[in-house]
Amino acid sequence: MKIQSPPGMRDLYPEDMRLQNWLFDAWRRASRAFGFSEYEGPIFEFLDLYTLKSGAGIVSELFTFQDRGERHFAIRPEMTPTLARMVAARANALPRPIKWFSVPRMCRAERPQRGRLREFYQWNVDILGVEDPLADAEVIAVAVEFFRSIGLTSEDVVITVNSRPVVSAALASIGIAPEENERAFELIDRHDRLSAEDFAKLWDEAYSDRVSSTRLMTFLTDTRMSACLEMAKCAGEEGRAAVEQLHALWERLHQLGVRDSCEFDLKTVRGLAYYTGTVFEAHARKGGLRALMGGGRYDDLTGLLDGPRVPGVGFGMGDAPVLEFVRDAGKLPQLADDLDVYVIDADHTLFPELLALVGLLRRSGLTVDFSYKRLPVAKQFKQAAGRHARYAIVVGAEYTARQELTVKNLDTGHQLPVAADRLRSDARDVLGGV
Amino acid sequence: MKIQSPPGMRDLYPEDMRLQNWLFDAWRRASRAFGFSEYEGPIFEFLDLYTLKSGAGIVSELFTFQDRGERHFAIRPEMTPTLARMVAARANALPRPIKWFSVPRMCRAERPQRGRLREFYQWNVDILGVEDPLADAEVIAVAVEFFRSIGLTSEDVVITVNSRPVVSAALASIGIAPEENERAFELIDRHDRLSAEDFAKLWDEAYSDRVSSTRLMTFLTDTRMSACLEMAKCAGEEGRAAVEQLHALWERLHQLGVRDSCEFDLKTVRGLAYYTGTVFEAHARKGGLRALMGGGRYDDLTGLLDGPRVPGVGFGMGDAPVLEFVRDAGKLPQLADDLDVYVIDADHTLFPELLALVGLLRRSGLTVDFSYKRLPVAKQFKQAAGRHARYAIVVGAEYTARQELTVKNLDTGHQLPVAADRLRSDARDVLGGV
Repeated sequence: MKIQSPPGMRDLYPEDMRLQNWLFDAWRRASRAFGFSEYEGPIFEFLDLYTLKSGAGIVSELFTFQDRGERHFAIRPEMTPTLARMVAARANALPRPIKWFSVPRMCRAERPQRGRLREFYQWNVDILGVEDPLADAEVIAVAVEFFRSIGLTSEDVVITVNSRPVVSAALASIGIAPEENERAFELIDRHDRLSAEDFAKLWDEAYSDRVSSTRLMTFLTDTRMSACLEMAKCAGEEGRAAVEQLHALWERLHQLGVRDSCEFDLKTVRGLAYYTGTVFEAHARKGGLRALMGGGRYDDLTGLLDGPRVPGVGFGMGDAPVLEFVRDAGKLPQLADDLDVYVIDADHTLFPELLALVGLLRRSGLTVDFSYKRLPVAKQFKQAAGRHARYAIVVGAEYTARQELTVKNLDTGHQLPVAADRLRSDARDVLGGV
Repeated sequence: MKIQSPPGMRDLYPEDMRLQNWLFDAWRRASRAFGFSEYEGPIFEFLDLYTLKSGAGIVSELFTFQDRGERHFAIRPEMTPTLARMVAARANALPRPIKWFSVPRMCRAERPQRGRLREFYQWNVDILGVEDPLADAEVIAVAVEFFRSIGLTSEDVVITVNSRPVVSAALASIGIAPEENERAFELIDRHDRLSAEDFAKLWDEAYSDRVSSTRLMTFLTDTRMSACLEMAKCAGEEGRAAVEQLHALWERLHQLGVRDSCEFDLKTVRGLAYYTGTVFEAHARKGGLRALMGGGRYDDLTGLLDGPRVPGVGFGMGDAPVLEFVRDAGKLPQLADDLDVYVIDADHTLFPELLALVGLLRRSGLTVDFSYKRLPVAKQFKQAAGRHARYAIVVGAEYTARQELTVKNLDTGHQLPVAADRLRSDARDVLGGV
């Protein structure tokens, strides 16, 4: 019986896995450069953890199931609820600031179709316990550093930055009251993913009595940061605090050396209800509207779970959009599972000695392989090249005659006879000299 | 509303994650030393993939669910069916030998109770496309190398080795016919996990007319390898081939330098129906009967999925038993998310310069952090120590006076004034000299 791969899920063959690991390594390296610690949570959670925050409507987007105890679970569609649960459970014991990252695997019950994955990975970075916009700047800077480390500069990727209280004041100026923000933010956030007609239809249904979709988009695109800040300053205490915070954020971004990658953008609002302050996204400068990353400041995630209030700021970055962008930008790296040494059998009576040498070299920390089949020497050299080995070691007549092995540097073609004992006792040094 | 972690699942806080990553790194390093390539598959598969091999009985052990298209899926409880599916799908295109490893996350619908996890990770290592027992020796050797690399020698861990055709011949000699093997192997395999009474009850129900459970265990424990091989030699072509293969395996284990870690054990039979040749397990030498790893040779996994026949050999090693063993053996490593540099603010008017330095050092590949709060210098030094920083760099009066920073080696206590420009252009060299 032939069984397919489940729709929307990925099989990662070694060549795919190398690319995936390259991305994961870059995410981890950037996180660690900034002093973040890695955490992980379970692949599924109690269903309530998701409905609590997002309402029952989210259930259709989840893979849900029961165990024999008839408890309801869902495979995680995002990491933030797990983060909130874990932090709430130890809120008083965790040293501040909490600087955590994770590279969780997650699933969404998308209708399977091209480019819509049901399973994906997402880099999550959060700082909790810090109100200072310095934390907002740090999480934005770690994203910029990740892009830089894989060869994407401020000319390739822009971080669009906004502030929920600021955009709220701006929207109020065109007649959208603060209590309508949640729905308005959700629609504006979906603008990139909807057709112009669909967006106009949805927006105009709700708000055309105050502002048409066309006027809204012109307003969001053309209103400058200075004008927005003026509006916010007039919007009471909260608005004035937001203006100060945005100014401070801008300064910190400059000081951390990532200001070039950031732009104020009134259209960046994010769709999730829990953001309360700064919101931001990463976008390709050219083409591709879809966000590469999105995040923001939230002030009471843990409170939802009966934990003490712990303010935080963080983002999620999916693997698929980043890899697609890197591919389109022609910046995919050449990756291979290379070897340090391929050991070549030039005299099969010495095969036991070859195996002993292989065992010894591997124990010394080198990556080593050899042919399981008896093959002509030329063919083994071909295999060594195919496996991207840096050195070949030939076990043959010189071993019988003088206990010597031939070591060949496969990059330079240079080769040397080496006493077997020296290679056994000091492999790395010997190889380094060939 | 307070929501718990789902029963039987693990929250990995940073200290847990460090240990988990330490194990994963050791698994990956050993795999790569032997020339294995990493692969991954989806977290859930079509339910059929599991019932096909194991029958409908397995469903109660799985977390199963449907999507809106009413297709049935299950979270993977093991990796081998995914491996078989992926290899079958590209059987003719994949270069041989196929040397693959994976570190998949998987779930089983265990009744939640102490020590019974519903979610775990398992190191999977397989060689496909090689009939030669050299492949069996290689997969055993990579497991031994992993144990060695984390400080566990042949005095700590033993690999028990057996051969299904050989044990089959031995069982035939006490009256258990080959067609009863599947059930007998399954029971013998569970022997470690059942109480003596439960095992006796189950065994005697089925086989006491031929051999009592007491006599069986004595027979399995006391019969020497040489005697088993004699029985197998008399068991026709297949028995003779098995004897030769076991001899060859033993020789290869010796040549690869891992013979000391291996012992013939007639009780090692493995419970899964698909093993056809060599079977093996890893066990602690002292205490702890539970297998740390189990595997064997299978000859037709891909055939089940309408692929061409691809013989293989491999094993799975769970994370929980290994970590528990390492903990019991007192060999848990001391792990910390250490930093290269902690930058200390000794003059808050210079904080913008401090941030610029932090950004620059991080971009040079160093792991760097600093306090988000304004704190006394002594407290910042304490934080630097708490974060396991190797160096502290103090930004203070010397910077204003002479554009100098103080670099302190926190291991040795040694400290030096350094020109800020030198640190900016050549951080690694400067730090190396302090």
